[in-house]
Amino acid sequence: MQSKIRMGMIGGGRKAFIGAVHRMSAQLDGLIELSCAALSSDPKVALESGRDLMLPANRVYESYEQMIAQEKQLPENERMHFVSIVTPNNVHFEPAMLALENGFHVVIDKPITLTLAEAKALKQKADETGLFVCLTHTYSGYPMVKQAKEMIKNGDLGTIRKVCVEYPQGWLSQPANSDNKQAAWRADPAKSGISGCMADVGTHAAHLAEYISGLQITQICADLHIVVSGRALDDDGNVLLRFNNGANGTLMASQIAAGEENALKIKIYGEKGGMEWHQMEPNNLIVKWLDQPMQVYRTGNAYVSDVAKFNTRTPSGHPEGYLEAFANIYKNFALALAARLDGETPSPFMLDFPDANDGVRGMAFIENVVASSKSDQKWYDFKI
Amino acid sequence: MQSKIRMGMIGGGRKAFIGAVHRMSAQLDGLIELSCAALSSDPKVALESGRDLMLPANRVYESYEQMIAQEKQLPENERMHFVSIVTPNNVHFEPAMLALENGFHVVIDKPITLTLAEAKALKQKADETGLFVCLTHTYSGYPMVKQAKEMIKNGDLGTIRKVCVEYPQGWLSQPANSDNKQAAWRADPAKSGISGCMADVGTHAAHLAEYISGLQITQICADLHIVVSGRALDDDGNVLLRFNNGANGTLMASQIAAGEENALKIKIYGEKGGMEWHQMEPNNLIVKWLDQPMQVYRTGNAYVSDVAKFNTRTPSGHPEGYLEAFANIYKNFALALAARLDGETPSPFMLDFPDANDGVRGMAFIENVVASSKSDQKWYDFKI
Amino acid sequence: MQSKIRMGMIGGGRKAFIGAVHRMSAQLDGLIELSCAALSSDPKVALESGRDLMLPANRVYESYEQMIAQEKQLPENERMHFVSIVTPNNVHFEPAMLALENGFHVVIDKPITLTLAEAKALKQKADETGLFVCLTHTYSGYPMVKQAKEMIKNGDLGTIRKVCVEYPQGWLSQPANSDNKQAAWRADPAKSGISGCMADVGTHAAHLAEYISGLQITQICADLHIVVSGRALDDDGNVLLRFNNGANGTLMASQIAAGEENALKIKIYGEKGGMEWHQMEPNNLIVKWLDQPMQVYRTGNAYVSDVAKFNTRTPSGHPEGYLEAFANIYKNFALALAARLDGETPSPFMLDFPDANDGVRGMAFIENVVASSKSDQKWYDFKI
Amino acid sequence: MQSKIRMGMIGGGRKAFIGAVHRMSAQLDGLIELSCAALSSDPKVALESGRDLMLPANRVYESYEQMIAQEKQLPENERMHFVSIVTPNNVHFEPAMLALENGFHVVIDKPITLTLAEAKALKQKADETGLFVCLTHTYSGYPMVKQAKEMIKNGDLGTIRKVCVEYPQGWLSQPANSDNKQAAWRADPAKSGISGCMADVGTHAAHLAEYISGLQITQICADLHIVVSGRALDDDGNVLLRFNNGANGTLMASQIAAGEENALKIKIYGEKGGMEWHQMEPNNLIVKWLDQPMQVYRTGNAYVSDVAKFNTRTPSGHPEGYLEAFANIYKNFALALAARLDGETPSPFMLDFPDANDGVRGMAFIENVVASSKSDQKWYDFKI
Repeated sequence: MQSKIRMGMIGGGRKAFIGAVHRMSAQLDGLIELSCAALSSDPKVALESGRDLMLPANRVYESYEQMIAQEKQLPENERMHFVSIVTPNNVHFEPAMLALENGFHVVIDKPITLTLAEAKALKQKADETGLFVCLTHTYSGYPMVKQAKEMIKNGDLGTIRKVCVEYPQGWLSQPANSDNKQAAWRADPAKSGISGCMADVGTHAAHLAEYISGLQITQICADLHIVVSGRALDDDGNVLLRFNNGANGTLMASQIAAGEENALKIKIYGEKGGMEWHQMEPNNLIVKWLDQPMQVYRTGNAYVSDVAKFNTRTPSGHPEGYLEAFANIYKNFALALAARLDGETPSPFMLDFPDANDGVRGMAFIENVVASSKSDQKWYDFKI
Repeated sequence: MQSKIRMGMIGGGRKAFIGAVHRMSAQLDGLIELSCAALSSDPKVALESGRDLMLPANRVYESYEQMIAQEKQLPENERMHFVSIVTPNNVHFEPAMLALENGFHVVIDKPITLTLAEAKALKQKADETGLFVCLTHTYSGYPMVKQAKEMIKNGDLGTIRKVCVEYPQGWLSQPANSDNKQAAWRADPAKSGISGCMADVGTHAAHLAEYISGLQITQICADLHIVVSGRALDDDGNVLLRFNNGANGTLMASQIAAGEENALKIKIYGEKGGMEWHQMEPNNLIVKWLDQPMQVYRTGNAYVSDVAKFNTRTPSGHPEGYLEAFANIYKNFALALAARLDGETPSPFMLDFPDANDGVRGMAFIENVVASSKSDQKWYDFKI
Repeated sequence: MQSKIRMGMIGGGRKAFIGAVHRMSAQLDGLIELSCAALSSDPKVALESGRDLMLPANRVYESYEQMIAQEKQLPENERMHFVSIVTPNNVHFEPAMLALENGFHVVIDKPITLTLAEAKALKQKADETGLFVCLTHTYSGYPMVKQAKEMIKNGDLGTIRKVCVEYPQGWLSQPANSDNKQAAWRADPAKSGISGCMADVGTHAAHLAEYISGLQITQICADLHIVVSGRALDDDGNVLLRFNNGANGTLMASQIAAGEENALKIKIYGEKGGMEWHQMEPNNLIVKWLDQPMQVYRTGNAYVSDVAKFNTRTPSGHPEGYLEAFANIYKNFALALAARLDGETPSPFMLDFPDANDGVRGMAFIENVVASSKSDQKWYDFKI
Repeated sequence: MQSKIRMGMIGGGRKAFIGAVHRMSAQLDGLIELSCAALSSDPKVALESGRDLMLPANRVYESYEQMIAQEKQLPENERMHFVSIVTPNNVHFEPAMLALENGFHVVIDKPITLTLAEAKALKQKADETGLFVCLTHTYSGYPMVKQAKEMIKNGDLGTIRKVCVEYPQGWLSQPANSDNKQAAWRADPAKSGISGCMADVGTHAAHLAEYISGLQITQICADLHIVVSGRALDDDGNVLLRFNNGANGTLMASQIAAGEENALKIKIYGEKGGMEWHQMEPNNLIVKWLDQPMQVYRTGNAYVSDVAKFNTRTPSGHPEGYLEAFANIYKNFALALAARLDGETPSPFMLDFPDANDGVRGMAFIENVVASSKSDQKWYDFKI
């Protein structure tokens, strides 16, 4: 590439949380520049937020429709390459479709859409257009997650027998006061969809379980709860899992686990050993063996796999964190896009980012888990 | 007391594991002496094992029936005060009943019996005779477990909303070879009962959840597995839980979690905070708050509760372990028994050991969880 | 500011380690853009490296002298605001002086210069010109380090009595092979100065000890070693410390601590409690009290100090790492510079980055510690 | 043996701390029985304390002189085999000598005596009589400490280059109030000797460093402090170390490290890797390698060395603690004594307990470290 990949951001204006995370992650490696934006559904906030970010005035748009339309008019070497959609869930599908229809690649925060049907439609459009849809399931971006996936793929643990994933948070332990913007939209079915906790964090947990293990969930037995009275959507839940190779498992997700920060953890057991990874100490991959001392694989060491190294920026002992994991998704996406723009074939490492297919499975997880929880039937088939 | 409490051991001969644990735990505090024993169902092994333990020859018996009969003939200031039953599960009920019928108190390893019906009969006999039945649910003996129970009882966490307990072990990850005595009897329905993993470790997990939280399980949804083919009993399982105050939870127990040692962990969440305790780092009680820094309560400090102190032997930083927790059960039992022998009323701290009622709940757990797992019904009432 | 702060980089071309770290850190927040560079002392490498970074050809310079001269000719709203010097230690002083003499602010990797005399000269020039000199002592950028400093300043621990800092690395445990560029220059006195390990990591440890405690080292007793034979400079050392308030301490630094990654740790004890911070788990600040449970302060929580919050980008439980700490130094520097460019007074939080004064103390540490190690005198005054 | 080994305790009456630890440790394995005692220098307390322990009245003595004299008159198969001395340091030498002179073996708490001269005299008497003197340096009794020693002896780490040991406690952070019996005698030179902190915990640290590494300290540079004003003896100190193979090291010991419990830690680095052990998590031995993932060796696993297994009582994951480590010293001593009484040669594993020679080195450590601290000379030879 002779120049950086150009990003147009949709959402993420003043006071938004995840928009800033996307910007920092996109910018970290110097491969992507924020070229334009429609930062809010409120045109005034959109314009002010654009000034905050020191964007040129003519590239700050009042709406995503305007941005897509006007950017399309710009010369190819100037206009944005992709949109990054960082709005609440109910404003995912339409801008993503519009972008694809107008030839722009898409990065989108999870869950991909409001409904499974939308997710399928988006995937179909991505397939038709051949454009990239990249879904920011952050936790799959950590080097030690990739190390775990690689070791399991290599058979180091033998056949996988059990996968236990948990994602407790505590920040919704009490009724949210009205000025908590993050809490507000997540608790509103119109903006969040049919699920609260399972959509917000349960999907991350399910994605991580499938990503690392290489397995697919085939049956579930779910028990969702609204623990804080007055809420419209689940804030807590437990799910029994069965996987396509016969393995069993559990998934716990909660936003009322008082005192927990963002304690995503996964344990995977095979015939020969087990693995454990904690998001809050992400540079450790604990590997336990039947007959040898426990090992701790650590980010940045010479002994880790090539894919882990490809997703690492600093030497061992210089801890990488959440933003670096997030940035790995953007970086791989940008490298894949740059390769394609240069007429080359992106390598498998470049293509290692969650996509529309993961989005479809995520929405299926939400719909199935909600249906299972309402059902008296013990085992519920995971339908797509 | 003018003399030590006298113990007669049933089982626990050469090569037995848990018998040695009982002896070390009983002897630790100098309150109990091993006075006599029927150490094996094989009379020859029983006698040899007695010599190993330097017991006087006339107090080494060929069978528990003989021991109970002959000890009863000894003068009161010489004969054993209680039997300690450390045999496989199928040899729990009969010696316990015989002991009670002959006026001896009983310490018994968990699970209390082979069936729920036996457990109820034993409890009834204990109630009738007024003799103590003490059940060695070891993990309730740890000081930080008692600290957790106390803080929850005091309302420090507010109403409890969620209890997640897990007990993964890996030692049965492969088919046991025939010379592993521990593995052999546990996998034999005739000796172990209708469950393997859930009887052996699941009951500990369930007891711990109820002991700390002060709640009772009222409904379950169980998914048990025989993962290693050829086994007759479950070696792994996951259970959804509901408690009598409306709280929900999960229980995972496994003996095929390859690489795990004895990784019992519990997390309990209330309105105001959460707690976490790991058996393998037992002197830490992690307490997480909604709006203050996480705390780590540690065994042996001045700030812990009286009940935690009562169950502690060494100053803070001098780690206590499994044997000390086990010994707390024996010590409290011995103090309660000594008080009664001295005509005094045992204090609540002395009476803080698991008893026949816990045994009944444990057997009910086993029977309900096996039935639930076989059932297509989603929620199964916890019946006693 | 209407536009980003413009950075010109000196050093940091292909295969350089720390240059990439500086670029990622500078870019993370979108406040700074890399505008120009002299990336290598080899003009060919400098030009190729500039292309790698997609810099405009006319802003890629063959030498830092050229860059400073030509940038000075550019219009004020176009030319770089500051240079970032990421070369080996022997190429710190001259470009820094030249930049200051030509009106450019300076960011510089530690140690600030090759000698104490140079450091003093640079500080004097900074004072004369009123330009910023920012020194990247990374570890002072971590939010929990700032939290520790704040709590000590507030007197939470009472008078500080003892400070123990250690910084073991293992990457120089064996004779370096010749293609390890990082190892090579650090072992070369002409490029590294009179010390190896103490200059490279010991200075970080000393800075951290003084930064957090608010104290100054006044006397030392040093024992430096060349453990791997054939080296010209120390690769290991231990130092006894005395501080200006009477506190004592220890400093251990090593690059032959085989198996260690980057294990900087500090423990500080006062009358009322102690603190512990580990760079490899940087989001935990462990606070131990005389009479209350240990606390763990964690990055991103509502209860932390304002200065910790000011240096945090993600919510609690979303781990921040080395690059974020590094970026805090750049961010604070950029905010201070932007404020000044806007004619405003930078806030104390903005000015919270290491500067030329820290650089002078760091060079004094190196010179004193080397002299003390050679001396038979037990206590050596820390002279500047 | 046809009967248990018989112990006579000197000291350890009501309210004593370490006496109870000795009794629990001695009794744990059923090899030793408390047969008689002189529990206090106050005859009344001695008698009452004997009743507390349910000793027969005729074996409770008013003084150790009386105990030794009268026990000697008892038939060989009845009289005590050894004395256990658990008094303050000033009452170590005389009872130990008297016991040896009268043919009794000796177990003694550390430090072995009040002065180096006494220690040498005791060692000489032990050598002359051929009786055992066993010194309870508890921390060498942990299985993972023995695993570390074994791996280093086997050359797993290559030549040892650096040993860093620290032993911070916080319990003397404030002036002791007069009713703290433990604090009182330790701060009294008449009872404790010429050192406080270094005698009480520094000796443990020095012993551990030499025990694991197999090296000997040859030179020191010490900096001791009385931090809490009013004390007569050091409560804190830092020492630079040099060992007989050229390795260097550090030793920090403190009793004013506010908030610390009993945080003995050691790190040892060799050419090929490093090891780390923390007394407060004693079942982990962390082993770090130059080019492989870090390993955690854990007590009770099949992969550990025979000597670690010999000193382990419970399966992996059932944590052992301080009392088990202490009990290993008693158990090995008892097995060695039993073997000798049976006319057999004790095995090396039985003889693996600290002895009079360790006692002499410990007293030399105390005297050298105090002298070095007072000296202006930088390096002080470790003289015996």
